[in-house]
Amino acid sequence: MKSKRIGKRTIKLNNKPTIISAACVVGPKEGQGPLKDYFDLVLTDDLYGEKSWELAESKMVQTSMRKAVEKSGKKLEDINYMFAGDLINQLFPASFAARELNIPFFGIYGACSTMAEGMSLSAMIVDGGFADLSLSGTSSHYCTAERQFRFPLELGNQKPMTAQWTVTGAGSVLIASSGDGPKVKYITTGKVIDKGIDDGNNMGAAMAPAAIDTIDAYFEDTKDDPNSFDLIITGDLGKLGKQITQDLLMKRGIDISKVYTDCGVKMFDLEEQDVHCGGSGCGCSATVFAGYIYNKLVKKEFNKVMLVSTGALLSPTSTLQKQTIPCIAHAVVIVNE
Amino acid sequence: MKSKRIGKRTIKLNNKPTIISAACVVGPKEGQGPLKDYFDLVLTDDLYGEKSWELAESKMVQTSMRKAVEKSGKKLEDINYMFAGDLINQLFPASFAARELNIPFFGIYGACSTMAEGMSLSAMIVDGGFADLSLSGTSSHYCTAERQFRFPLELGNQKPMTAQWTVTGAGSVLIASSGDGPKVKYITTGKVIDKGIDDGNNMGAAMAPAAIDTIDAYFEDTKDDPNSFDLIITGDLGKLGKQITQDLLMKRGIDISKVYTDCGVKMFDLEEQDVHCGGSGCGCSATVFAGYIYNKLVKKEFNKVMLVSTGALLSPTSTLQKQTIPCIAHAVVIVNE
Repeated sequence: MKSKRIGKRTIKLNNKPTIISAACVVGPKEGQGPLKDYFDLVLTDDLYGEKSWELAESKMVQTSMRKAVEKSGKKLEDINYMFAGDLINQLFPASFAARELNIPFFGIYGACSTMAEGMSLSAMIVDGGFADLSLSGTSSHYCTAERQFRFPLELGNQKPMTAQWTVTGAGSVLIASSGDGPKVKYITTGKVIDKGIDDGNNMGAAMAPAAIDTIDAYFEDTKDDPNSFDLIITGDLGKLGKQITQDLLMKRGIDISKVYTDCGVKMFDLEEQDVHCGGSGCGCSATVFAGYIYNKLVKKEFNKVMLVSTGALLSPTSTLQKQTIPCIAHAVVIVNE
Repeated sequence: MKSKRIGKRTIKLNNKPTIISAACVVGPKEGQGPLKDYFDLVLTDDLYGEKSWELAESKMVQTSMRKAVEKSGKKLEDINYMFAGDLINQLFPASFAARELNIPFFGIYGACSTMAEGMSLSAMIVDGGFADLSLSGTSSHYCTAERQFRFPLELGNQKPMTAQWTVTGAGSVLIASSGDGPKVKYITTGKVIDKGIDDGNNMGAAMAPAAIDTIDAYFEDTKDDPNSFDLIITGDLGKLGKQITQDLLMKRGIDISKVYTDCGVKMFDLEEQDVHCGGSGCGCSATVFAGYIYNKLVKKEFNKVMLVSTGALLSPTSTLQKQTIPCIAHAVVIVNE
């Protein structure tokens, strides 16, 4: 049955692309957080036996992908496509992981929205009959992101309380044309939204309007009921961005408050772990989904989830050129049927 | 009719995704080259009225996309998806273009393979019924690439003769589920290939093995005849990489010599324009395709073309960490039927 467009921006997938497995790896700090029991591997050293943090991040993506494939009982050579990307310039971690995995590779970049971007593309490619098995994954690493986007770690710079903590982690999912598991049912693709925030230490406020735009578009297109969801989860807006999203959606008449949280809020204990507004980075929504949410979907504790990964598309160069921060959010609705 | 996989890595598209329009913009130097009559706009100033080269590059992508949509008689608000990316960290030009164009956006990164990557994804998305209209485009700019990957222009560094010249240009195509124009018929997606080259001034030699791998996979999967093509064009391997590709494919029993050239070779007059091995950058295969090749396809001077955009997935960070250069090549076969 052919899938179809609903409204302006949403696709309904009718061929049941199925997430047959998921896997994730996190760093030591993430392994001490509230989701610690959901991760497949918690590193004791964030260099992961490599000579650089970038190579460690690349190895994390590889491990999450290999584990996802292993868990499904498939082999790497059976995988038709791999969608991956990360925050690091020219996708160093993903590109080097793709070299080792030897799978036809589409590099993608959506900053911290990359997980939902990859899942959207994998699900469409599988649903359309172009692939039987498609991997999507992404990663971030506190140490690679800090030195690329902010300051050398050695400086020990303090951050304002609106800042978030880049998650060290990688998560991947394997989407298949058949098999057991939750299905990707709807996809709403983000537009780039920029409300004029130029403070790179306040990404939650910058990205919230993009999340609002995409969630609003989904409900406009589908006339779905927010309370039919077990979980609507943005990621990674953090504590402040979460509040803005909930409040401003309420003003548009969409009340998600009963089922809503954010991956950046779930990842860490905000009181105890000194992460200010919460987690961020591509690896945040990737590991919260591949660890916590996927597990709950498989156990039927969740039966309908909307993952809205959010990304800030700024660069150090755009910031130096005094540009504001363009943001994007991609929504994927996953159901047990 | 459902499209299908052929062999290990190739998709045959059965629903005739059609390139209904294409447009491109180039810089002053490109506008003096042998393809000058095929470009929609030749800039007289590579700042294009902007305050920075990155903003100029972003405006070039925008212009090429707006022109492609205009030529088709469609409107921007009718476009379902936009696939774009470029060489610049965090896709600064593409992300800012997507903000202005207000189209649901998938950011992609394949270095100089981005044009064929975007065309592959747009064609599949349209063929699968997920979109009626999907834009794909990419850009590069000599001045943004030089300062990011090599040296400040002000230093006036000399380059070895194996180096190539980054094209200032942006090209876009609009792929539709119906309409007149050449059709995307086959897609062969690249794997990341790395034969150990670590010299960023010899990208042709680094990328040639990726082109060879993808072209070989296409012929292996389809049993097609190289001489049935009017043109097989890699991009951007330059003079040296082109020779390597042709020679090594010949050793594998695939003789493409009668129909083969390279976008980097076509773009400039290699004797007169002082570009050493030829053109490079995402904008090279994008403008050669959207300008020269698309024009010849529409006029039925070409009826079967294979575009194999090639990308080097290195970064300044991976180079500093003494890593070799992972490369990729994506093939798209376009026909008049």
